[in-house]
Amino acid sequence: MRTNKMRAVVYQGKGAVSLEERDIPVIRDPGDAIVKVTLTTICSSDIHIKHGAVPKAVPGTILGHEFVGQVVETGSAVKKVKPGDRVAVNVETFCGECFFCRRGFVNNCEHENGGWALGCRIDGGQAEYCRIPCADNGLTKIPDHVTDEEALFTGDILSTGYWAARLGEVKPADTVVVIGAGPTGLCTMMCARLYSPAKIIAIDVDESRLELAKRQGLADVTVCPAEEPCRYGAEDYADVAGKVQETVVQRVLAESHGRGADVVFEAAGGTDTFELAWKTARPNAVVVIAAMYERDQTLPLPQMYGRNLTFKTGGVDGCYCEEIMELLAAKKLDTGCLITHRTRLEDIMKAYEIFEQKKDGVIKYAVKP
Amino acid sequence: MRTNKMRAVVYQGKGAVSLEERDIPVIRDPGDAIVKVTLTTICSSDIHIKHGAVPKAVPGTILGHEFVGQVVETGSAVKKVKPGDRVAVNVETFCGECFFCRRGFVNNCEHENGGWALGCRIDGGQAEYCRIPCADNGLTKIPDHVTDEEALFTGDILSTGYWAARLGEVKPADTVVVIGAGPTGLCTMMCARLYSPAKIIAIDVDESRLELAKRQGLADVTVCPAEEPCRYGAEDYADVAGKVQETVVQRVLAESHGRGADVVFEAAGGTDTFELAWKTARPNAVVVIAAMYERDQTLPLPQMYGRNLTFKTGGVDGCYCEEIMELLAAKKLDTGCLITHRTRLEDIMKAYEIFEQKKDGVIKYAVKP
Amino acid sequence: MRTNKMRAVVYQGKGAVSLEERDIPVIRDPGDAIVKVTLTTICSSDIHIKHGAVPKAVPGTILGHEFVGQVVETGSAVKKVKPGDRVAVNVETFCGECFFCRRGFVNNCEHENGGWALGCRIDGGQAEYCRIPCADNGLTKIPDHVTDEEALFTGDILSTGYWAARLGEVKPADTVVVIGAGPTGLCTMMCARLYSPAKIIAIDVDESRLELAKRQGLADVTVCPAEEPCRYGAEDYADVAGKVQETVVQRVLAESHGRGADVVFEAAGGTDTFELAWKTARPNAVVVIAAMYERDQTLPLPQMYGRNLTFKTGGVDGCYCEEIMELLAAKKLDTGCLITHRTRLEDIMKAYEIFEQKKDGVIKYAVKP
Amino acid sequence: MRTNKMRAVVYQGKGAVSLEERDIPVIRDPGDAIVKVTLTTICSSDIHIKHGAVPKAVPGTILGHEFVGQVVETGSAVKKVKPGDRVAVNVETFCGECFFCRRGFVNNCEHENGGWALGCRIDGGQAEYCRIPCADNGLTKIPDHVTDEEALFTGDILSTGYWAARLGEVKPADTVVVIGAGPTGLCTMMCARLYSPAKIIAIDVDESRLELAKRQGLADVTVCPAEEPCRYGAEDYADVAGKVQETVVQRVLAESHGRGADVVFEAAGGTDTFELAWKTARPNAVVVIAAMYERDQTLPLPQMYGRNLTFKTGGVDGCYCEEIMELLAAKKLDTGCLITHRTRLEDIMKAYEIFEQKKDGVIKYAVKP
Repeated sequence: MRTNKMRAVVYQGKGAVSLEERDIPVIRDPGDAIVKVTLTTICSSDIHIKHGAVPKAVPGTILGHEFVGQVVETGSAVKKVKPGDRVAVNVETFCGECFFCRRGFVNNCEHENGGWALGCRIDGGQAEYCRIPCADNGLTKIPDHVTDEEALFTGDILSTGYWAARLGEVKPADTVVVIGAGPTGLCTMMCARLYSPAKIIAIDVDESRLELAKRQGLADVTVCPAEEPCRYGAEDYADVAGKVQETVVQRVLAESHGRGADVVFEAAGGTDTFELAWKTARPNAVVVIAAMYERDQTLPLPQMYGRNLTFKTGGVDGCYCEEIMELLAAKKLDTGCLITHRTRLEDIMKAYEIFEQKKDGVIKYAVKP
Repeated sequence: MRTNKMRAVVYQGKGAVSLEERDIPVIRDPGDAIVKVTLTTICSSDIHIKHGAVPKAVPGTILGHEFVGQVVETGSAVKKVKPGDRVAVNVETFCGECFFCRRGFVNNCEHENGGWALGCRIDGGQAEYCRIPCADNGLTKIPDHVTDEEALFTGDILSTGYWAARLGEVKPADTVVVIGAGPTGLCTMMCARLYSPAKIIAIDVDESRLELAKRQGLADVTVCPAEEPCRYGAEDYADVAGKVQETVVQRVLAESHGRGADVVFEAAGGTDTFELAWKTARPNAVVVIAAMYERDQTLPLPQMYGRNLTFKTGGVDGCYCEEIMELLAAKKLDTGCLITHRTRLEDIMKAYEIFEQKKDGVIKYAVKP
Repeated sequence: MRTNKMRAVVYQGKGAVSLEERDIPVIRDPGDAIVKVTLTTICSSDIHIKHGAVPKAVPGTILGHEFVGQVVETGSAVKKVKPGDRVAVNVETFCGECFFCRRGFVNNCEHENGGWALGCRIDGGQAEYCRIPCADNGLTKIPDHVTDEEALFTGDILSTGYWAARLGEVKPADTVVVIGAGPTGLCTMMCARLYSPAKIIAIDVDESRLELAKRQGLADVTVCPAEEPCRYGAEDYADVAGKVQETVVQRVLAESHGRGADVVFEAAGGTDTFELAWKTARPNAVVVIAAMYERDQTLPLPQMYGRNLTFKTGGVDGCYCEEIMELLAAKKLDTGCLITHRTRLEDIMKAYEIFEQKKDGVIKYAVKP
Repeated sequence: MRTNKMRAVVYQGKGAVSLEERDIPVIRDPGDAIVKVTLTTICSSDIHIKHGAVPKAVPGTILGHEFVGQVVETGSAVKKVKPGDRVAVNVETFCGECFFCRRGFVNNCEHENGGWALGCRIDGGQAEYCRIPCADNGLTKIPDHVTDEEALFTGDILSTGYWAARLGEVKPADTVVVIGAGPTGLCTMMCARLYSPAKIIAIDVDESRLELAKRQGLADVTVCPAEEPCRYGAEDYADVAGKVQETVVQRVLAESHGRGADVVFEAAGGTDTFELAWKTARPNAVVVIAAMYERDQTLPLPQMYGRNLTFKTGGVDGCYCEEIMELLAAKKLDTGCLITHRTRLEDIMKAYEIFEQKKDGVIKYAVKP
């Protein structure tokens, strides 16, 4: 029997997140659905919110924007899902009808909750139940033979990888660089593979993540800049950083007929990785800036002149969930390898700690309410 | 030491092909290269020529347009290859500079030998040596770790499959139908997979070819119309054919959410398969007509109105050999499974017989000069 | 004050159309809007319906699918328009959310009234009022400075021309052939011009329509096959037709560097014009079959082999009305020249007669209820 | 009779350019052609060279990369042009066959003189004669009815505008911003119009250039930031600049349904104009950075997050000259309005002065050798 109370992770304002008791949400709009959360997870964006680095995040909001569940109630205008359906939840809320949605730019949907609202501006899914506005666009049915764990990342990091790979315009036989082998980088590799590049080169300072990428068949070549500084000592960091970067660039050139990568994905978010992104790109390459940055970056246009690079920036357009689900069902995508840790909602605060500190080889948690 | 004589398969005019002694070719134009053939094969187009079904084929011409070899001499204008290089030969000769070449339509190159000339209008590669005009465009270097057998089909049937898959605009998660599981159909499946469809449905009357497609992981679902007629008896063929076709269409609908395929490739060339192509296509699908037809076909526009199908017709544009070679080298393409038979040039007439009659489970021959 | 009766043109079954008194429509679904028709017109599809050539047309239905008006009432789910708004009506009804709509293939919308329903299966706009289902997708607001006459064709023939031009992938500097200079052909020329071809060649048997095309700056070159037969005499029509066609093909070649047109639009719908379409196309051209055909056509694939033509078939996807309205407002499109005749709804049966018989130089009627 | 001496403008090293006597060039390579220059001009890149701001420019080189002439001699490998042909010269030298050329990225051609070499690293066309390497790619025949003045800008600034407009992916009905109404900006407007945007908004501090843009029908709306500062006084420039910029952004929003431009072209090259570029762009817009910059720019990624902008940077790919010439011949492009001044080669040093100082309303010079 449903009571009207549930547990939920609540953002308390900069620096603070806690597990609380909250009211179970109810339908407010004909387009809403109520979803009983069956599996949820923690995203690095949750950590950004906790740190106060997401200005639009509203204190008092239940966190969580990456989860799966079962529909328990739908508003009168909902047509695609019905109570009982197992569903993956989309990180983004969108109307499907405005200028931006019609062009596939759902991240900029003009709806009052358009774009990323769940678990940021409106209550999300690190809870037992969640209200989903625009449910016809925000929920994707999970086929019977796809498990909750398999479907867990559909609406956020897998959507991000899928969107990034599309932006990158990867073509068969391309050489691709992915900077950052964390959850987003790994999903980007997985989705870039859908277009059959000849080679994916993964770059990260964390060797264990690179090993995972290689073991899972996501990366063909791995490069770990962290190995290099030791050789030089740390007395002059800028100098060392420059040498390390140069070494990494040379490695990429050597792996790409001396030209550089046809497509580069930046999924790390640092100043050094931003530079690395355009330096490992061949002339006329597409450089996808998929990470969230905390600092402005420098675009050295005089130095780049004639290299004719294209930079694509921004955040996921989560409008490909049906295709993603088809690919999961067909085993063309498989994100099982990303789940390194499992726990229950009552223990999520401990999971936050491990995830935030990247301890214990964690990539992603699966959290059961 | 090179003598100036060699063995070669010569087209004698309708119905006749024979193994003869011919002069070893020499450079005639600064753009030419002479290639020592190291491995060659027989293509169904050779059979078409033998039957007199290729009007532009010139009697007295050495056959063979699918082969690999080693460069032994180059004209003064040749820049990309040099003596000693192992190379795959392109079925098409093209200048790279005319209106059509500039748009990638090399099959319609305006050069005097533009398009398919080798082994049809000018001497080809079922021989010990072959002269290659426009050698910079007509030859692709084979990396050391790619074997002759692996590279053998690069310039013709693999190019055809690659071109067809591009034309089809296959997208991740699509449902794809390939009609015909012969060499071209199998290559088309292999290349369509580069774009990660959720499902490839192969249709053929030859069960053993379908089994091969499935065993090699090229097809996800196979449908054999040949199984059906028996159920109805053969007294009224048209009626039976109609019922069989309807059964096949229903199978495709059942495998495609009731919609039909997103992309259909017709690689069989018959009237029944042409009909099957558009009938298994969902509304707004792309139907690639990649086979060579001996008869006109009917386009029932009133019946199709509103289905908004796109038909793409024609023959290979062989301008993707470098990408194909990259993919072979990276093991993203592997045509080894197509070679079911091996023999030597002196025995090629026997191989012609087996290949023409599709005996002995033959898909493709590898013939060593 | 509104009474509940109005005049309307009703399809009575094959051969018969009449002006009747009918009830003014009312809202039936939350997505409906009621539009007071301020200007309507007759389309050649109406004539097809009258002739019984549109199987899905339901006797008893009010005709009319090309009209503008003013919203007088909206259902509770309608968000984009409100009473008082001047609107152009879309020939197609579509949900915007199904598999086909999400891909822009609204003609195959899975909604019960999806695709062309208005004035065919559900009551249309040759009447004083009309109910518009899925009104948010089916209505486009008309800016104040755009007149009813300017906006009249937005939802049907101008949408068709716009859709066809997009399908044709016209590029700057292309040579374009448009076969048929009737309303659809003229709109296709107008929309093809948006992509700046170097030359549009219009072909029609009606010289006055060609003159209009040239006078309005829509065609750069006009070719009238009708002029030719006289030269040969009519004793052997097939022979003459062949010669005429050959003459027209030669004219197109002469106007296109000897290559044929880069893009061909077939907007006439006959067997001779279908042949002309692919014969005037250069190799690798796109041939858009935009007309509605009453007969099957022959695709001579052996003859076409190697020409690598793409055929795009079907009926309008009416999902570009907002862009069209922007272009009308900016005077980049101007369909004023198409209105050659004006009358009132009570006299529409006379207009039907003139329009059907193409008398009096008629291109399009503007009919005021 | 040809003597072996001619006059030519020679780059002497930073700060110095002079008119000298030089040897008439001769064929050095089979792919070369010698062109008698019939009309030449000065480009802002020449001024950059003079200022020492183009590192790859070699002192002692004859300047000039934008000119037309008549072929007087061709090397043995040249096929497309012959002595007597009137030709426009391409700013870029390219082989047409390398990895980059095959993808249309001719600016990065791997040929030793690949990319912009003429009038920079090898002798150019501010002279009586010029040697053109890779002449088949570097020369475009001028039809008889196109004058030298009409064809003068084909190979450089018009190619730049054409390339930029393609990069911008302008669609019918778009709102376009062009920042900078100098020669490149004006050509960009002209070429963007080929894709029929609903509106082009030109922004420049020079009112006379804006007036020209409007008078020639290139811009629909003009915005002059320069008008604004006066209102605030100059005491606090940064503050004023911010206010001016804000005013300009508001103007663009008001002209674009409050969204910002669908496509922005930056053709001015300053820090303020770089900022203006992305600030006037709507979310998910394409921002083409077509100007040559002397300073690094800042990409404020945190501020831009979620706006999902695409930045396309670099210099012209001059591979569209045949299309451009078709469009000039068809009067779909007309650069006559850009020639505001005419002089002779012997007076070119005076022209340099006026052009450099943007005196006397100069846009472009036509200089007769």
